[in-house]
Amino acid sequence: MTGQTDFLAACRDLLGDTYVLTLDADTAPFLTDWRDRFTGKALAVLRPATVEQVAAILRACAQWQVPVVPQGGNTGLVLGSIPDAAGTAVVLSLARLNSIRALDPVNRTITVDAGCILQTIQEAASAAGCLFPLSLAAEGSCTIGGNLATNAGGTAVLRYGNTRELCLGLEVVTPQGEIWSGLRGLRKDNTGYDLRDLYIGAEGTLGVITGAVMKLYPQPKACITALAAMPSPAHALRLLSLMQDHCGASLTGFELMSQYCLQLVAEQFPQLPRPFADAHGQSHGQYVLLELSSSQSEAHAVELLEASIGAALEDELIEDAVVASSVAQSEGLWQLREHIPLAQAQAGKNIKHDISLPISRIADFIAVTDAALASAFPGCQLVCFGHLGDGNLHYNVAPPAGMTDRDFLANQDAINRIVHDQVHGFGGSISAEHGIGALKKADLAHYKSPLELQLMRAVKQALDPQNIMNPGKIL
Amino acid sequence: MTGQTDFLAACRDLLGDTYVLTLDADTAPFLTDWRDRFTGKALAVLRPATVEQVAAILRACAQWQVPVVPQGGNTGLVLGSIPDAAGTAVVLSLARLNSIRALDPVNRTITVDAGCILQTIQEAASAAGCLFPLSLAAEGSCTIGGNLATNAGGTAVLRYGNTRELCLGLEVVTPQGEIWSGLRGLRKDNTGYDLRDLYIGAEGTLGVITGAVMKLYPQPKACITALAAMPSPAHALRLLSLMQDHCGASLTGFELMSQYCLQLVAEQFPQLPRPFADAHGQSHGQYVLLELSSSQSEAHAVELLEASIGAALEDELIEDAVVASSVAQSEGLWQLREHIPLAQAQAGKNIKHDISLPISRIADFIAVTDAALASAFPGCQLVCFGHLGDGNLHYNVAPPAGMTDRDFLANQDAINRIVHDQVHGFGGSISAEHGIGALKKADLAHYKSPLELQLMRAVKQALDPQNIMNPGKIL
Repeated sequence: MTGQTDFLAACRDLLGDTYVLTLDADTAPFLTDWRDRFTGKALAVLRPATVEQVAAILRACAQWQVPVVPQGGNTGLVLGSIPDAAGTAVVLSLARLNSIRALDPVNRTITVDAGCILQTIQEAASAAGCLFPLSLAAEGSCTIGGNLATNAGGTAVLRYGNTRELCLGLEVVTPQGEIWSGLRGLRKDNTGYDLRDLYIGAEGTLGVITGAVMKLYPQPKACITALAAMPSPAHALRLLSLMQDHCGASLTGFELMSQYCLQLVAEQFPQLPRPFADAHGQSHGQYVLLELSSSQSEAHAVELLEASIGAALEDELIEDAVVASSVAQSEGLWQLREHIPLAQAQAGKNIKHDISLPISRIADFIAVTDAALASAFPGCQLVCFGHLGDGNLHYNVAPPAGMTDRDFLANQDAINRIVHDQVHGFGGSISAEHGIGALKKADLAHYKSPLELQLMRAVKQALDPQNIMNPGKIL
Repeated sequence: MTGQTDFLAACRDLLGDTYVLTLDADTAPFLTDWRDRFTGKALAVLRPATVEQVAAILRACAQWQVPVVPQGGNTGLVLGSIPDAAGTAVVLSLARLNSIRALDPVNRTITVDAGCILQTIQEAASAAGCLFPLSLAAEGSCTIGGNLATNAGGTAVLRYGNTRELCLGLEVVTPQGEIWSGLRGLRKDNTGYDLRDLYIGAEGTLGVITGAVMKLYPQPKACITALAAMPSPAHALRLLSLMQDHCGASLTGFELMSQYCLQLVAEQFPQLPRPFADAHGQSHGQYVLLELSSSQSEAHAVELLEASIGAALEDELIEDAVVASSVAQSEGLWQLREHIPLAQAQAGKNIKHDISLPISRIADFIAVTDAALASAFPGCQLVCFGHLGDGNLHYNVAPPAGMTDRDFLANQDAINRIVHDQVHGFGGSISAEHGIGALKKADLAHYKSPLELQLMRAVKQALDPQNIMNPGKIL
């Protein structure tokens, strides 16, 4: 207890009383996860404003052996940025480190504090005539530090890669409270081990990311959208190959949605467009939202998209398609995609899976897993959509008509096991873009090879021998 | 001595006598580096044919504490794949692991043994209608395992990234002789630490890469080339921005060459084209070789390139340009670029630097470093060319007229220090794409921060506590 008192006094000396939160009313927002499933406890929430303060806090944590839970926007989905129930850890909020340090339009880089909100970075890039392509649902709240710590994915991965591929350099405070200045803005640098990529995706278990150099891209001159309809996921895969062959890097979005997804959206949000139902009254098995970007002009994008869709119709890969003829129509089509999770939430509980597969196996995976679930839980509803171009499916399972949420959720472990066993069997990943956190730690231990776990533990032990960095997450 | 005898007997049991080379005539090609600067000694050269044999050999090496130098095509430039002079290590050649294990055109991946020759992989991809974009001078001899171990760069980095960005999964044998099967063909996978990127670029000091899953891309329909002339590197940088804005991902090559580079080529290879000298008799300060690829058609590529060059002429970024009107002309332009190192070699000795810089700093770096060298070594000749789009310069220094090679090379350390000090001051890298090996180990120790070196040593100690993997390289 004296140790805790001394530690908190040291923190107050370092940050000032205002930024060491200990009252429940002050700490509450930092202790409950985004989806409101778990509330942890903390000795305090610490809010440093500078990298030097972060380093000093880490040295204090090391001295008193206080566990540290780094936190950005606290929008994670796997309980990675909140503490456990023990109450012995501190939450280290990076939110006050929120400056854009530099923007270099010729090098096409932006150097940012870890606590910068993703949308702020997008806007700064845009104001300089550049594109920062990382984009995801939580972009108005999440921070780039959290994006890096979880290697966030989102909607632009097909063209621009995950957060990892968008990062050139990092600044990290080690668990010993030293500052590693790896803020290099270089496209090529082969000078020793790739520490950068080791910290990216480590979910704050190896050190605290405090700054980063991120890549920028030229802004496309035009971006247009289409919705294509087809009988099956296998047709969608063939369409993906065709579109990539025709459009190369101009293909910037390829999102799969099953007929049931759009039916749910239509039921829950009747005001949204129904591109096919209105025109033809017909129902297709699957839909793909396509996005094309052009560095040349809107005319070029339209011409390329229409030619590609023409070829797909000729090859009988698709049954029908609508091309958005305005920005508003384009946004309407994206809203269909974005309202799927909201429609699900309104319709009731469901069990979510954030999985990835080799793209060539997706149709088989869906067929086999749908059948396995239908056999084990007759009548269950499958809400399957996602970033098909990245092999990333959001494969969600909703209860059969008439079953209560409570009865359904009692089967959560059994349903996860069926889905994840199939994912594993098809060479996929049980966490495509959300990470492991505390939520999937047991799954990781189950599906990873003992050797891979052992290698990860060796790295953890080497860099954080006291095990004070976000303990209980990942490993 | 008994230990060595027992160890070699164990190796012969594992591989058969034929594949344990100990005679000088047999081992010689494995002991001298590509540029013929150093010849090491080895206990033996071991030539396993399977991953299991590699693992068994590693267990024997661990048991007898025999250092292991993994080797692919032995085309490295930094003495990373040959042993030192002690004669206590074995060279572990991966050359017999040379199968293409699988090619999945829908997932756009190829799974290969580490010993596959890069060109073999390019050809296999091409035969399946795909592009494997990694391309570099040694592609007919180098292996993908070596490319991965050194994170090779090459001419397609601007569009497709380094070898790191082209790799989805790895198979690695640990220093303890265990096989990590990380051969995942996934675009998104956030399940724990990024071991893959830790082994990539580690130059065989953490384990032996035995297999990999590499990304494939759609083959462009057309690829065209132009040569533009301009007064200065600053103009070339502005041209790069303009070309990226106009062409986006269609810009696949952007190579800078100084006037002196082309003069050297013209002197040494008078049979090669001289696009500007012949037509106009004029001399420009700098030249850029541009390459555009189109997923649509040759007509599209030509139209885009001509429009971009028109804009550059209008903005007075360039003074003149020629667009290749045939594949032969295009190859002629690339030959100018590729003959620069050959022309240098014919002209005499020079001191090479493989450096990278933030792209926006390149013009200043060249001006300041040229001046510093001219001041310290009056009359020295600067042969500066490289992948400007990646910030990667080959900045080579040749002797003043009349100075002997020997007198000139006596200044090698002083010249390296001047160049590398400037690189360091401008936030650059002393090894852009060649790695560290044994050659640049002292430079790494000089320029890296003590903390970064300490973090690297901690990782090395964690994964290779016996220090048997390629000791004396990098760290």
